[in-house]
Amino acid sequence: MAEISHVSPLAPGTFPELPEIKGARFASVAAGVKYSDRLDVMLAHLAPGTVMTGVFTKSATRSAAVLDCQEKIGVDNDKGAAILVNAGNANAFTGKNGVSATKAVTNAVAKALQLPENRVFSSSTGVIGEPLPHDRITSKLAELTNTLSEDGLASAAEAIRTTDTFSKGAYRTIFTPNGPVKIAGIAKGSGMIAPDMATMLVYIFTDGKIARPALQAMLSDLNEKTFNSITVDSDTSTSDTLLLAATGQSGVDVEGDDKFRDALHQVMLELAHLVVRDGEGATKFVEIEVTGAASSPDARTHALAIANSPLVKTAIAGEDPNWGRVVMAIGKSGAGADRDRLTIRFGDILVAEAGWVSPSYTEEAGAQYMTNETIKISVDLGLGEGLSTVWTCDLTHGYITINADYRS
Amino acid sequence: MAEISHVSPLAPGTFPELPEIKGARFASVAAGVKYSDRLDVMLAHLAPGTVMTGVFTKSATRSAAVLDCQEKIGVDNDKGAAILVNAGNANAFTGKNGVSATKAVTNAVAKALQLPENRVFSSSTGVIGEPLPHDRITSKLAELTNTLSEDGLASAAEAIRTTDTFSKGAYRTIFTPNGPVKIAGIAKGSGMIAPDMATMLVYIFTDGKIARPALQAMLSDLNEKTFNSITVDSDTSTSDTLLLAATGQSGVDVEGDDKFRDALHQVMLELAHLVVRDGEGATKFVEIEVTGAASSPDARTHALAIANSPLVKTAIAGEDPNWGRVVMAIGKSGAGADRDRLTIRFGDILVAEAGWVSPSYTEEAGAQYMTNETIKISVDLGLGEGLSTVWTCDLTHGYITINADYRS
Repeated sequence: MAEISHVSPLAPGTFPELPEIKGARFASVAAGVKYSDRLDVMLAHLAPGTVMTGVFTKSATRSAAVLDCQEKIGVDNDKGAAILVNAGNANAFTGKNGVSATKAVTNAVAKALQLPENRVFSSSTGVIGEPLPHDRITSKLAELTNTLSEDGLASAAEAIRTTDTFSKGAYRTIFTPNGPVKIAGIAKGSGMIAPDMATMLVYIFTDGKIARPALQAMLSDLNEKTFNSITVDSDTSTSDTLLLAATGQSGVDVEGDDKFRDALHQVMLELAHLVVRDGEGATKFVEIEVTGAASSPDARTHALAIANSPLVKTAIAGEDPNWGRVVMAIGKSGAGADRDRLTIRFGDILVAEAGWVSPSYTEEAGAQYMTNETIKISVDLGLGEGLSTVWTCDLTHGYITINADYRS
Repeated sequence: MAEISHVSPLAPGTFPELPEIKGARFASVAAGVKYSDRLDVMLAHLAPGTVMTGVFTKSATRSAAVLDCQEKIGVDNDKGAAILVNAGNANAFTGKNGVSATKAVTNAVAKALQLPENRVFSSSTGVIGEPLPHDRITSKLAELTNTLSEDGLASAAEAIRTTDTFSKGAYRTIFTPNGPVKIAGIAKGSGMIAPDMATMLVYIFTDGKIARPALQAMLSDLNEKTFNSITVDSDTSTSDTLLLAATGQSGVDVEGDDKFRDALHQVMLELAHLVVRDGEGATKFVEIEVTGAASSPDARTHALAIANSPLVKTAIAGEDPNWGRVVMAIGKSGAGADRDRLTIRFGDILVAEAGWVSPSYTEEAGAQYMTNETIKISVDLGLGEGLSTVWTCDLTHGYITINADYRS
């Protein structure tokens, strides 16, 4: 597999100081699932009373671990829970053996932590189609359970990496009349999804107190505006998983609290942006904002057509203010558009309006803007109130090198 | 703009000896629309009695010439017709000026050839958003009309090129009890479509005799299996145009003749494959065949998901038999699939079946197969009778170089 030695130029300088979440403990270990000499398995233990919610890939070829999580996620149980994640092997497209490997791992965790089997969730990320050496994981369970600690989340963020060039974490603390509530999350992903080595996995923990249906609804809704609004290469993983655990141990009821919702939104958005910033070969962070569409789904269709267009993405890589390619992407998206009502802006620069290039636009100004590391393309369709924002990166030689130049 | 000096490694050795089509005459000229010192405008004159049919891009931001063709194509008139094409400027997203530029060109041709205005069709291909210098074209009309000849089709294939690395032509002759019928066509396109410089344009001529509704129905149907079944980068042009002119001058009625239909299908398929073979940066010609889908639209959705996946295309570029990425593309397509009923073949090699890699498959055999210049990936979904075949090319550093490394 490709060994990428450099860190993404879009990486943040440091990993944040994640707060401890009461009721959530973490351990990581080097189990040699595929990699040697690095952390590759993480275990999270959630105290009794924890509410578990999640969203998962819609892929028709999703992995055994995803199918197993989906079966378990809607069930209430107050005996606690656990999450086990391995990197290096996706246990996807491995037939019946894949199902039994997932069962072997989750049942062993259930036994070790004295949890019901349907309260152990797992994820596997890495190579597709190879049998998961589950005994390498289960043989490390004693070491994992013996080292669980509330300050283990940063190591967990390291353990779940595959082709990621940096660890990804984010947190928020809100202050309420009844005390503080903390949210901390980690993510992995490098490509919106390279199925070999870059599945997106996200784990978020909070000590807020909230019932499962309310938390699941909030998570699903915010997911649309965050993780479902990023794209690196339009490809979708067989293993994408987002789990949110609420231990309730702050004692603060956050159901219906807009501040909690906002904080969760911010943590999710920050993690989603970090995944884009680690996009394979990325050199530019790109925001596409579409307004004035006939409907918001139409706006989203246009935004994703622009964000996924290889020609738009290569133009951005080449620092080329090629607004003609934006027009092309809007035209091909299939959603409603009227050429003569389009307005296109690069940053604050008015590029095109009323069906043609703006009289005030100069190629020099456009080219200067495109040298920025963060690029914003705004499109107003002039048709209605629909709007959508998505985030992506450019398409560079680095992407080809990572995905074509090395045999996996 | 990018100057690509090499010819595609997938180019055929020679341009075919296209037959003359009685009733169709061609002329080409160097008008300096954008390029200098090369043919960039072609004129076709079709004799009275010619039937014109066509299919066009569905883009919502299509060009003035396309909109003009669409208005005219459904009208019958026995006074003859003309097609004028310029390369170097797409006259797309040029507002009201674009509409009047198209009108200026087509009306001048109508006057020069004494044709009704609604019998002159035009196409423009090249840069988006720049005003078309239509006087450079109209000033050459006398030269064009004076040099019209039945053997001018090969030069026309040269004149309509933009980033194409070779001219594209194909023909078939069928023999009927009433005499021979000829079909000859030319195409341009290099990318399924780079809107700057690689719009797909196709012009096919036959001396067969057939009524417009029957010919239009045949063309639209065959278009789905040929030009609408190729993709280079999933991007769609603002200017794609396919015109088919039947002069009737063979005197042979071909309505309902399966041999004629087959021959037209072959000419269209050959031209479509030539466009893929000139795909930007292409080093592999790839056929994706999907069978056993619940329906043929489902099969097409899967086939295009595979053909458009950047991860599948980069794997092919890297000669990597990465069948996991094929599984991923099927999973993400949104059409019906059952992981455990999938069969995947690379050429004749059985790669995966029953939800896992085939016991007979070896990486060595897969890797050896991927070194071929022509790659066939077959997927059987095991669900029904739906089938679809599409053609594409790989995604290489060459594509990035063409589209990102140079300012357009």
